Parts: sequence; structure tokens; C-alpha cells
Amino acid sequence: MSKSISIFDTTLRDGTQGEGISLSADDKLKIAKKLDDLGVHYIEGGIPGSNNKDIEFFKRVKELHLNAKITAFGSTRRKNSITEQDDNLQRMINAGVPAATLVGKTWDFHVHTALQTTLEENLAMIGESIAYLKRKGLEVIFDAEHFFDGYKNNPEYASAVLTTAREAGADWLVMCDTNGGTLPNEIQEMVSGMALKLPGASLGIHTHNDCELAVANTLSAISAGARQVQGTINGYGERCGNANLCSIIPTLQLKMGYPCIPGDSLPQLTNTAHFISEVANVNLPVNQPYVGNAAFAHKGGIHVSAILRDSRTYEHIAPELVGNKQRVLVSELAGQSNVLSKAQDMGLSLDPSSEQARKVIDKIKTLEHQGYQFEGADASLELLLREATGEVNELFTFESFKMLVEKTADHPVVSEAFVKLRVGGESLYTAAEGNGPVNALDNALRKALLTYFPQLKDMHLSDYKVRVLDEKDQTAAKVRVLIESKDFNNTWSTVGVSSNVIEASWEALVDSMRYALLGQISLQNETEANQAPRGLVNH
Amino acid sequence: MSKSISIFDTTLRDGTQGEGISLSADDKLKIAKKLDDLGVHYIEGGIPGSNNKDIEFFKRVKELHLNAKITAFGSTRRKNSITEQDDNLQRMINAGVPAATLVGKTWDFHVHTALQTTLEENLAMIGESIAYLKRKGLEVIFDAEHFFDGYKNNPEYASAVLTTAREAGADWLVMCDTNGGTLPNEIQEMVSGMALKLPGASLGIHTHNDCELAVANTLSAISAGARQVQGTINGYGERCGNANLCSIIPTLQLKMGYPCIPGDSLPQLTNTAHFISEVANVNLPVNQPYVGNAAFAHKGGIHVSAILRDSRTYEHIAPELVGNKQRVLVSELAGQSNVLSKAQDMGLSLDPSSEQARKVIDKIKTLEHQGYQFEGADASLELLLREATGEVNELFTFESFKMLVEKTADHPVVSEAFVKLRVGGESLYTAAEGNGPVNALDNALRKALLTYFPQLKDMHLSDYKVRVLDEKDQTAAKVRVLIESKDFNNTWSTVGVSSNVIEASWEALVDSMRYALLGQISLQNETEANQAPRGLVNH
Repeated sequence: MSKSISIFDTTLRDGTQGEGISLSADDKLKIAKKLDDLGVHYIEGGIPGSNNKDIEFFKRVKELHLNAKITAFGSTRRKNSITEQDDNLQRMINAGVPAATLVGKTWDFHVHTALQTTLEENLAMIGESIAYLKRKGLEVIFDAEHFFDGYKNNPEYASAVLTTAREAGADWLVMCDTNGGTLPNEIQEMVSGMALKLPGASLGIHTHNDCELAVANTLSAISAGARQVQGTINGYGERCGNANLCSIIPTLQLKMGYPCIPGDSLPQLTNTAHFISEVANVNLPVNQPYVGNAAFAHKGGIHVSAILRDSRTYEHIAPELVGNKQRVLVSELAGQSNVLSKAQDMGLSLDPSSEQARKVIDKIKTLEHQGYQFEGADASLELLLREATGEVNELFTFESFKMLVEKTADHPVVSEAFVKLRVGGESLYTAAEGNGPVNALDNALRKALLTYFPQLKDMHLSDYKVRVLDEKDQTAAKVRVLIESKDFNNTWSTVGVSSNVIEASWEALVDSMRYALLGQISLQNETEANQAPRGLVNH
Repeated sequence: MSKSISIFDTTLRDGTQGEGISLSADDKLKIAKKLDDLGVHYIEGGIPGSNNKDIEFFKRVKELHLNAKITAFGSTRRKNSITEQDDNLQRMINAGVPAATLVGKTWDFHVHTALQTTLEENLAMIGESIAYLKRKGLEVIFDAEHFFDGYKNNPEYASAVLTTAREAGADWLVMCDTNGGTLPNEIQEMVSGMALKLPGASLGIHTHNDCELAVANTLSAISAGARQVQGTINGYGERCGNANLCSIIPTLQLKMGYPCIPGDSLPQLTNTAHFISEVANVNLPVNQPYVGNAAFAHKGGIHVSAILRDSRTYEHIAPELVGNKQRVLVSELAGQSNVLSKAQDMGLSLDPSSEQARKVIDKIKTLEHQGYQFEGADASLELLLREATGEVNELFTFESFKMLVEKTADHPVVSEAFVKLRVGGESLYTAAEGNGPVNALDNALRKALLTYFPQLKDMHLSDYKVRVLDEKDQTAAKVRVLIESKDFNNTWSTVGVSSNVIEASWEALVDSMRYALLGQISLQNETEANQAPRGLVNH
């Protein structure tokens, strides 16, 4: 029996049933194209006629001429009705796709409680619906809903459902763990059982993550003989989500020897996961297996010194195989090895044994003790390291800022900022409003600098995080502000710490602009540059 | 062989090696208390002497008199050195805890590459370090690092490591999948193998989630005879995280019949997960198994109608078993019942069918939609409910506040607040400084109210949290401020939301004082009370 696995992606259907996932027709088309580039075999586009988005998707997806087969999802005909007159089946046919995913009840309890019909009628609904779609020339993937709960409750009936579907001509028999409550050893046992009962049948698996076992359950089913995997990118889906294809594909292909997608497209996996999370407008969890930003990020000091010797010491695969990369995080848990390898990444020549290196490492440790955290602020760290090697020009000197927030009973809150800087020997005094204090400061600082550094107009704040430190001593509590900034090509993060949230934000803002201007020539004479108050402009 | 499982939590050690997780000593103490309430058996507190936070934690945790055993983490003695003189072992002993987690190399490749010593010396390092800690009266949990990679590469040596540790007196032999690259069937096989080789030994399992299999691998090891589970709350940890105890505990206890924690504390699981994510200041993934807000949330139309008939149709367990609840994302039914039960808890008579009840529930829904979150702000919720039943007297009318932050190059930052209120028909205008804007507002507001409500001098802010909502849309991003306040007898929490962090803080501050003054008689005439701008004083 061939070990090749058919990858069935349902990001566009089951994936959109996850909380907070909502895709326009355009989004769906972009994602379909991306999935096709990755090399999946089936793309389930949605439920024809359920909403306008899906109708539009099925119309326009044909123009993309994808290699993957597009499938339309729907359920068996209504009880006690004529198959040929079922609107739902009609819509699946009219979608004009080569394949249909037909879902049918498999759990006797559901037949009685949800469908409220007889076991016999349910079998008829399944058999007749499949036969009809086959007569219309569609490939039929039959999703046996709640197969495993059904099998536990009434194995004869669950088996009868699959047998009926097969005899009616279904091309794939997919066993679904719809509620996500089944355990890997149970899946193994029941799928092997069906593989014996239905020799030569093409079996598939569809799992949900309610016990954090969707991936393991899928792998169990494959070992037991299933050859189609239904899942979603990043595990999007109803409740706790569907089986995550971004974890299943590399494990099957790299560790278990089951070919899933063309080997040369596996390195596109990380990019595909990030692209789709962007289109879906949800953050990709930093710790997501294989494709997350932290999937190959090392923080523990012992770990870091070891991976610098040989990355296999703390990496289960080479990150490049899935298009990800190794990162070293700096934190109080880490020794100087982290800092030095960071410097290396930046192409800085920092001799580990040098006075220079010792100084900057001590400085970083002191700052971390004060509450700075550089693992989330690469740009601030880079500024520190470049300063240590004398590679940063101070482009302006800080003189003062004022920030005013005013609220009266009958007017909305107002925020204004006033910033005084010296640039190129000239004193600049600017004022700006904002929808909040940080936004006002950002606007005023930018206004002051734009005259000298027009390139700053291309950058903007993309994220802002505040963390209160040592809450025990409230009046002296410090806040840490992390700011993420973007321009057309790059994203960078900076940090500021103070007992005053405004001052902390200012620090991070200043670092963000200094980083954007790295490599610029100083416009001020030395004496002025030296007057730059270290505490603020350079921490 | 007993089926009872020993739960070993390493949220405070391995958990803090996850990207973006950084805990103060106070955070760690709060989490330890919460873990102890849940009923875990071991709490790994950190690495003694690695940083000041951990030193402070080990000092102060004793005052909490927890039932769980606190353990200190460290590695075997340095190569070619005298055990009794090893600072690292010394620090573990000086931490003054009952148990030590000692990590030792098990993979011959690591002994050569990372340690750069001989296989014999590594065995000596393990044996001597364990024997020494035992002589000092410590319980010793031996973490066999990279056990599974080691076993694949050199089974004799990996076994020799465990045998050495056992003979030296280790109380637990824990097999670690340090790189997270091992598959469930491999784990099953190797753990069974060791269970046969070491009859009667207490075996444990420590897995990482690099293949999204940490939970499945843990369950495999348990079926194969392991009886200790090492993991973290919410799966925090290096790279892709550790095994998630929030998924493992309910599956073992409810589905596999392995007792882990007292049955009556299992319903605390959801609350524990959310509490710890709040303290760590990271969002709990909405789709997290068992404890996530969407874990039992139903969106698909078919699903919803079915669960309204019988929730077993689409729920693998009853949400209440883990302290979670069913949510219907499309239906208005959601939330109502728990708001009413909250009101009942407060001894408020709120007739579910009344106009009053409908109004307050709609108001709460609207506020939650705007980003308010009452889970962490009981006092604000109580104020809303008491307002609905007309039990709150507005004690003052807001007129205005101003907040000024000023920083010059050669002076530290200054924060001043100016507050104007009407109390008892009198207009009060006060000004105050603070070490930050919120502190200044707090001082000015308190100053104004103290003349009429001297009891406010006994209350103070004890915690302040800021969370940025919808970070995607930066310029319109909202912030949620949670304030915790204390007096001699009580602690209460309030919430404020605005696109302006100062206004959000003001809202929470005002609610905090209004709550402190619940039951006070209004000093102002009705007309004035009615002029209280709802937007601010009552949200």
C-alpha cells in the first residue's frame, strides 16, 4: 500500500468556524492560491449558497486555474425527501467544482437527537445523496461525522454507515472525531478495525483539538492505514480548532516517511502559515510548532552555549527544512553567549574577551535588572551593541517634552504633546495632538525630525504593549513599554522602562526612530552629541 | 501499581524560558499560591542564584506554607571537580527547599559535544551529585535530559544513566524529550522498555511541544508506566513550550482514570489558567483546549441547534467539570445566566424576566463588546448590577481632570494632576504630584474626596495592569486598565477602557473609590447626581 498522503485543506470552511476567523471572498481566493502553491491536493472552499462570500468564491476560484481540486461542502439530503429535489445537494452541484465533501451522521445518538429520524432513513439519506452526486460526475469525499463516538456507542451502525457510503460510490471514507474527545490509542484501534473490514477502501481522518490531541490522533490514523488528512493551516477551526496541517505535514514527511507535498515546497510552510494568519488577521502564536517565531528560539543559557557548538543539541530538525530560522533570545536567564551570538548575527566584531564586550554585557544585565527586556526588543538591543562598538551617530539631542491630557464632563478627552530637540545645531520646538498620550508624543517627535529625516514618514507604530513590573510596591511600580514599528520592508521592536508610563513610552519611541535612522550621518557637532543625556536617548 | 499521578509543575522555571514570559518574584509567589490551591504535588520555583528574582522567591515562598513541595533546579556538578565544592549544588542546598530537580546528560552526543567530557565522567557527575544531595536530606528528582534522543543513539548508555541515578538514590527518574522531536509510539516503546529494566522505579515524563505532540507523548508515557508528569500551565516553556498541564490533567483524570489532583479542585482549572495568563500578562489563546473561552463555544448553525437539544451532541465533556462554560457565539442566550447568578451571589434580587435585568445584561454585553472585561473586575461589575437595582448613590459629580507630564534633559520627569469635582453641592479643585500620571491622579482624586470621606485614607492601589486591545489597528487601539485596591479587610478590582491610557486609568480609579464608598449616603441633591456624566463615572 502506497505511503503517499492526500492533503485535504479545510481552512476556508471548517477553519472559518473558529472564533474570530472571518474571511472575505478576496481573502479566500488569496488563501486558495497560497495553498495551491504549497501543493495541497484538495481545497474545501466553503458551503455553496450558505452565504454570498462562498457563492462569489466558487464563481471566481475557477479563474485561478489551480492544480488542487476545489471541493464544496454540504450535508446529506433532508430526511423523508426526494434526493433530486434537495436544494442543498443542488447547490453543491451548481458550484461547478470537481469534488464534493458530503457529511453524514454516523452516531446513532445524533440520528435520534439531532436529525430526529430512524437509523434506516439516515442510511438511505447517505446512500442516495452519494449516488446522486456520483451520477452528476462529482468526486465524493464522505465525512462520517462523529465516527468515533458513534463506533463506541454502536460499532455495527458506524460500520454500516461506511459500508453504505462505499457501496454508493464514495471515493473517500473520512472518519471524523467531530467533538475532539477521542484518544490516540482509540483512534488507532478503530481505524485499524475499519481498514480490516473494508479492504482496499480509501480511508481518511478528520480530527479536532479539544484534548490537544488532533495532531497525534491524525498520526495514529495514518499508521493504522488512513491515507487522507483533513486539517487547516495553523489549526483554525470550531472551538479548539482542527488538526494543524503545519505540524502534521512536516512530521509525516520528515519523521515518518509519508510523502505529503512536493519536497521542494516544504520550505514554504513557515511563509504560508504567516501569510494566512495575516490574511485572517490573527496573530500567529509565537510558540507554534515548526512555523512560529519562537519554534527555534533559544533562551536558556546552557541551551544557547550548546547550540552555538552544534545546533542539533537543542533542535529536533534543521529550521530551514520548513523555512523557519534559528533565533537566540536575550534574557536574564541567559549568559553572555546569547549576547555575543546576537552581535555576530548583526555582523558586529565583538571580541568576547574584550573590555568592550564585558562592558556592554554588564550594561545589558544592569538594564535587565531594572526591568528592561530585550528578547522582545531586538532593535533596542542592536542600538546598545552598535553603541558599544561605536557604530551609532546621535542624530539629535533631547531637550524636553511636555504631555498634557485633559478631560471635562462635557467634552471628550484631549491629548497634546510638546517636544524640544536640537538637530544640526538648530533648536526645534513642536506641538501635536493625538488620540492618546503616546500617539501625541509620536506625532510631535516625528514632526520635529521629519524636516531633517523625511524617510521617517514611511514608518509607523504597529504594536504597543505595557507591562507593570513589581506590582508589590505600588507607588514605586515600574512599567515596561514595548513598541513595534514598521516601514515598507521591516518590522522592529524597542523597549522603555520607567516608573512613569509616559517616560517609558518616550524612551521606546526615541529608540524606534533612532533605529529607523541607523547609518545616517550626525548633523550636530561633537560637543552637542556628548550632551545627549544617556539616561534617555541611550537609556 | 497505583494509577495516582504526581503532578510536577515547572511554570516558574521551564515556563519562564518561553519567549515573552518574564515573571517578577511577586508574580512567582502569586502563581505558586494558585498552583498550590489547584493541588499540584511539586512546584519547581527556579534556578537558585541564577538571578535575583529566584533568590527572592526561594526566600519568601517559605512564608506561604504551601502543601506542594517546592523544588530548586540545577545541573550535575562541573566535570572533573569536587562535588562538595560545586557552587551550583551548594546553591540548591542553600535554597532551603525539601526537593531538588537535578538535570543530567543522557545523550552520548551531548556528553561529547556540549559537556566535552567522557561518558564515564558524566556518569560520575550524576551519581556523585545525587548522592551528595541525598546526604543533605533532599528529595531528588533526576531529569534525564534528551533521554529519548540518547536512547535512540546509544540505548546502553541512556539506560546506564538511569541505573546510575537510581543506585545513587534518586527518588524519581524523569525521562525528558528535551528537543520535543520524539513521536508517541517511540515514547511508549522506550518508557515500557525502561519500566521492564528498572522494576519498581518511580518513572516520570517531561516533554516539549515542538511537534505539537507534548500532550500525546505524556499520555503515552503514562500508559507505559510513568507516574510523574512534568509540565506547565498553558504549556508555557522554551521554544514551542512544555507539556500543557491544563490539557493533561483533565484527560488523565476524566478520560483515562488516573487521579492527578483532588476531584473537587478540577473545576478550578479554567480559573487557574486564566489567572496565571493574567499574571504573566500574555493572552490566553481563545481556542485553548478545556480552558479557552472558545473551548465550548459553538458557532456553526447546525451545531448550535443541536447543542440546544442536548449539549453532548457537540461537547466531549461537560464544561463545568473543568470550570469552563458553554458559549453560543450567535445566540443572545450566552452570558445572561451567569450575570444573573453573579447578582444572586451579591444578594441582589434581580428578576430574570424583568426589564431591569434585560437592561443591565444589554449594558454589560455592550461594554464587553467595547473591551471591558469583568472576569478580573468584580467591583466594577457589582457597581453596574447595584446601579441596575438602584442601590448606588452617586457621591460626587465629575467636572474635569488635567494631567501633565514634563521631562527636561537635566531634571527627572514630573507628573501633576488637577481634579475638579462637586461633592455635597461644593466644588472641589485639587492638585497633586505623583511618581507617575496614575499615581498623581490617584493622589488628587483622593485629596478631593478625603474631606468628605475620611475612610478613603485606609485604601490604596495594590495592583495596576494595562492590556492593549486590538493591537492590529494601532491608531485606534484601545487599552484596558485593571486596578486592584486594598483596605484593611478587603481587596477589590475595577476596570476602565479607552483609547487613552490616562482616561482608562481614571475610570478604574473612580470605580475603585465608588466601590470603597458603597453604602455611603449621597451628599448631593438629586439634580446634581443626575448630571453625573454616565460615560465616566458609571462607564
